[in-house]
Amino acid sequence: MSGTINPPDGGGSGARNPPVVRQRVLAPPKAGLLKDIKSVVEETFFHDAPLRDFKGQTPAKKALLGIQAVFPIIGWAREYTLRKFRGDLIAGLTIASLCIPQDIGYAKLANVDPKYGLYSSFVPPLIYAGMGSSRDIAIGPVAVVSLLVGTLCQAVIDPKKNPEDYLRLVFTATFFAGIFQAGLGFLRLGFLIDFLSHAAVVGFMGGAAITIALQQLKGFLGIKTFTKKTDIVSVMHSVFKNAEHGWNWQTIVIGASFLTFLLVTKFIGKRNRKLFWVPAIAPLISVIISTFFVFIFRADKQGVQIVKHIDQGINPISVHKIFFSGKYFTEGIRIGGIAGMVALTEAVAIARTFAAMKDYQIDGNKEMIALGTMNVVGSMTSCYIATGSFSRSAVNFMAGVETAVSNIVMAIVVALTLEFITPLFKYTPNAILAAIIISAVLGLIDIDAAILIWRIDKLDFLACMGAFLGVIFISVEIGLLIAVVISFAKILLQVTRPRTTVLGKLPNSNVYRNTLQYPDAAQIPGILIIRVDSAIYFSNSNYVRERASRWVREEQENAKEYGMPAIRFVIIEMSPVTDIDTSGIHSIEELLKSLEKQEIQLILANPGPVVIEKLYASKFVEEIGEKNIFLTVGDAVAVCSTEVAEQQA
Amino acid sequence: MSGTINPPDGGGSGARNPPVVRQRVLAPPKAGLLKDIKSVVEETFFHDAPLRDFKGQTPAKKALLGIQAVFPIIGWAREYTLRKFRGDLIAGLTIASLCIPQDIGYAKLANVDPKYGLYSSFVPPLIYAGMGSSRDIAIGPVAVVSLLVGTLCQAVIDPKKNPEDYLRLVFTATFFAGIFQAGLGFLRLGFLIDFLSHAAVVGFMGGAAITIALQQLKGFLGIKTFTKKTDIVSVMHSVFKNAEHGWNWQTIVIGASFLTFLLVTKFIGKRNRKLFWVPAIAPLISVIISTFFVFIFRADKQGVQIVKHIDQGINPISVHKIFFSGKYFTEGIRIGGIAGMVALTEAVAIARTFAAMKDYQIDGNKEMIALGTMNVVGSMTSCYIATGSFSRSAVNFMAGVETAVSNIVMAIVVALTLEFITPLFKYTPNAILAAIIISAVLGLIDIDAAILIWRIDKLDFLACMGAFLGVIFISVEIGLLIAVVISFAKILLQVTRPRTTVLGKLPNSNVYRNTLQYPDAAQIPGILIIRVDSAIYFSNSNYVRERASRWVREEQENAKEYGMPAIRFVIIEMSPVTDIDTSGIHSIEELLKSLEKQEIQLILANPGPVVIEKLYASKFVEEIGEKNIFLTVGDAVAVCSTEVAEQQA
Repeated sequence: MSGTINPPDGGGSGARNPPVVRQRVLAPPKAGLLKDIKSVVEETFFHDAPLRDFKGQTPAKKALLGIQAVFPIIGWAREYTLRKFRGDLIAGLTIASLCIPQDIGYAKLANVDPKYGLYSSFVPPLIYAGMGSSRDIAIGPVAVVSLLVGTLCQAVIDPKKNPEDYLRLVFTATFFAGIFQAGLGFLRLGFLIDFLSHAAVVGFMGGAAITIALQQLKGFLGIKTFTKKTDIVSVMHSVFKNAEHGWNWQTIVIGASFLTFLLVTKFIGKRNRKLFWVPAIAPLISVIISTFFVFIFRADKQGVQIVKHIDQGINPISVHKIFFSGKYFTEGIRIGGIAGMVALTEAVAIARTFAAMKDYQIDGNKEMIALGTMNVVGSMTSCYIATGSFSRSAVNFMAGVETAVSNIVMAIVVALTLEFITPLFKYTPNAILAAIIISAVLGLIDIDAAILIWRIDKLDFLACMGAFLGVIFISVEIGLLIAVVISFAKILLQVTRPRTTVLGKLPNSNVYRNTLQYPDAAQIPGILIIRVDSAIYFSNSNYVRERASRWVREEQENAKEYGMPAIRFVIIEMSPVTDIDTSGIHSIEELLKSLEKQEIQLILANPGPVVIEKLYASKFVEEIGEKNIFLTVGDAVAVCSTEVAEQQA
Repeated sequence: MSGTINPPDGGGSGARNPPVVRQRVLAPPKAGLLKDIKSVVEETFFHDAPLRDFKGQTPAKKALLGIQAVFPIIGWAREYTLRKFRGDLIAGLTIASLCIPQDIGYAKLANVDPKYGLYSSFVPPLIYAGMGSSRDIAIGPVAVVSLLVGTLCQAVIDPKKNPEDYLRLVFTATFFAGIFQAGLGFLRLGFLIDFLSHAAVVGFMGGAAITIALQQLKGFLGIKTFTKKTDIVSVMHSVFKNAEHGWNWQTIVIGASFLTFLLVTKFIGKRNRKLFWVPAIAPLISVIISTFFVFIFRADKQGVQIVKHIDQGINPISVHKIFFSGKYFTEGIRIGGIAGMVALTEAVAIARTFAAMKDYQIDGNKEMIALGTMNVVGSMTSCYIATGSFSRSAVNFMAGVETAVSNIVMAIVVALTLEFITPLFKYTPNAILAAIIISAVLGLIDIDAAILIWRIDKLDFLACMGAFLGVIFISVEIGLLIAVVISFAKILLQVTRPRTTVLGKLPNSNVYRNTLQYPDAAQIPGILIIRVDSAIYFSNSNYVRERASRWVREEQENAKEYGMPAIRFVIIEMSPVTDIDTSGIHSIEELLKSLEKQEIQLILANPGPVVIEKLYASKFVEEIGEKNIFLTVGDAVAVCSTEVAEQQA
């Protein structure tokens, strides 16, 4: 059947078809089982061809490349210049001034002493600088992960009653978060984090930001007894119950005035991008000024709550504090798993965003190994989970960062702070920390993204709002669960309900397109052309068969109603059908038989390489007849419309 | 940009391009939010348009149609004829003679008395006959589900030590299996069972068949103390440990001779399809003959184990025996959920297979409601989980069944047996039941299907073997779990790693095809054409972008090596991209920017209706420029190759 057919002008179609050169649909060259599996494994786990640089190198060079793959710093350090260092120094100092007050506040979200926040901005950034491949990310504790660690851990151990075990649980969770992160990267399973949809992440982040801001009302209003729940109803109830006697006006004045100051600086920074450093150093300035005032006026005696005491000195070793057995061990694994995944999602999203802006490549899997290692080491040196921070990474970028050296600069500044300056934070009012956190997390509420999602995809918007409302009305974990479930549901929907469309011929062309999209695309009498827009697998094969039958039935009814010739040929455009499995072939067989009973011939147009190979292997080609498989819809229509015309005559 | 462009002959491409009429890529008419959601909901839950017959009917007619939708028997009973009854009667008598000995044997697999097997072939088929829409399915207990119920329940309660509670647990599981089945159908979530892939089901069924056959060695060899485990290693160990004293030669002689008889009749039935009734009644004949011989020679005194006693009378009420609280309640829900899903998968697969053979429609969701209702009622009338049986349905079909009346005939025969004949089964040797079960389950091992799967899709074959080996070497539940996990992994693989292919131009045509499939498809100098074969969603957007970048990089390297012009245009053929979400648009934007930095223009060809609408909504069209979106790859190449030629000159 590979010959050449020149059918006469397609009578019934009303359009002039050019003479058609019939080309046979080819099966691709046989690959063999091992090559088949190899190619699937490669595309799944090594689609970025991570080993391509290793090809054709000497063993010594290969070893060097291997070490460099784990520690990219070895690669770029050799090309490091003084000009780059200038950029890194400025960026590092800027993010250090931003991270110190944030760290102290975030530590409170995680229910640990402020010093642990600072510890987490010392060791992890140093590790990351050696192993990470992002040049723009700023490493340290972040608001959402701190909140997540705080709520999950306090559900297991009360941090007030049993602070020692609580802290141990936090380190355990950090350890296992690192193990999970590094494990995913090592096993090249990094693509798993892609299963959290962008829309769900936007909703989750926005909800978490509002939840965090609400939590700050405790420090902001100077309330002493506050609910432990995070949902908006409990929090507002707690706030108004305390309205009469629980609020402290001095605290509110301090908090409100500095929050205004911070928001104004943020606004300035947004209007003039050269003044990015204004909002970046504003928090530290607020801390210094407010601390000074509280100290001068001894406002702490008026009920203004202060940080009190922060231990001096850098991170002590904490490896002996990690639980490796008992019930807190399994809880630690669970919490570490959840918080680790959220931290990973945030860090990888940041790394990818900035890499795309500066056009360099990020290896997601390597990145995960770096982040995981940094958290494992962190858990042994009194840190809790660190990751990439949206706000600080943006500042880092705008300050002109060149390499991960800015993280080293920041880490050194934090270490110096821990060694020498922490006593000065004694009189820092909690209200300032609350104001700093509120102003920071507001940036996580991405209304523009939500509007864009609404415009583009309503179902995505539902996912976004589901996660958002779940977080603020129920809890952070439930919101996260909703986000994951909706993301998965969307994937399953995509897989089980692929689109099928009816095609028509565009006037004066040989091009067949969706009749809904192109209203002037004309259907050809007696012929129904259906395109199936997905691989046909067990998960959708029944749907595809039933949907195709329904198209045929509807078209037959239409044809009868309008006195058109009955459908004699159903052409399935197979171009988008990238793969088919046994269930899929079975379904097509059933469709073929069912159509034959109605005296309709099934025609396939342009099956892809994998599909045609499988159609041959399953002997389906013999069943349908090789002559009923065409290279293009145009070829098929040319032949079929002739036959329709002959039958009509 | 909607005008007409007639570019000059595409110089660089080496082929003669006809003058191109440029048609604008249209966005489909706006649908609005509610219509959007409505269409998604419809395609997901009501793709078969179940309400289409209700349109434009009077209320009375609508009510009748509604009742008829729940009880299809009302519809077909009016057209029932004596000729049809003749077919149903013969089929019903045939499957009754087959089901009675099978039921007694299967009840032993579920660790319940033989009478419960017979009960389950009385009430459920009656209910199904009224509500079900399959004409060919034969309802009753089946081997795999019996084994599953037996192993899952005995893990909770020992049937020897506490037979009363064990039986209650079985009824509880049956009740909830029915609730789950009907619930899925009622919520129109029937498509969920499509997530168990055909390959995994083939492997699971084959493994279960071998496990069941191995379990029969106890009765077949007359062993008294037998392992409770179902894995092949434990069973064979148990068999050989008993070899010296535990085997009973009289039992073996009876079992082996009748198994030979059954297999010979099966062979005869296969060779001559008109003699289908020979294997169908052979089990009953074996039972009668062997019972007679055992009674005459009192072989039970020689150690031949017999059925002993079966209570007379039809199903007693058991609604008070179902657990509605306590720990057995939750266990019942769990077991019911698992066994109910397996039963559903089997029944729906059977119903669909025979419906396709006779070309009538099955509504999967209605079918589930029927099956669920029948099990709920069954659990209240001393039945355990019933479903469609592969072997008996095939016999039913071959015996010329016309409607579900054959199930009614079978149920009446079973009821008469229960009322009058059960005492006669007293001397039936267990070895005969073992032989009947072995001969029945051998039909579940579908080696042809496994070979076909191997030929078509190696990954599917791995799934099949994973489930198969899991069942025979570990346990039925683990095998089932492996089947489900592999099925899901395959779906996720499909979604995260869509295929991307490089297209080339077929000689003497304007058709662009996969260069791997069509080796003579030629790439056009300076232009790279990539087709993405899937919707671009969050789950694969990063992969698509990175993979496209890699194609470009590789092609640039090739071009440099062979002294070809560098790539100036990347055309993405979007036909198969049926949908895109925010993450997907984001990825394409990043690709556009990254290519622009390399002085390569990104071109999109033929985005579908949903995609083009979203590209407009997200303002991406403005970013890339409307002139860079073409209706076909041919149009795009015509314009681009001219520019490449001009730049070369």
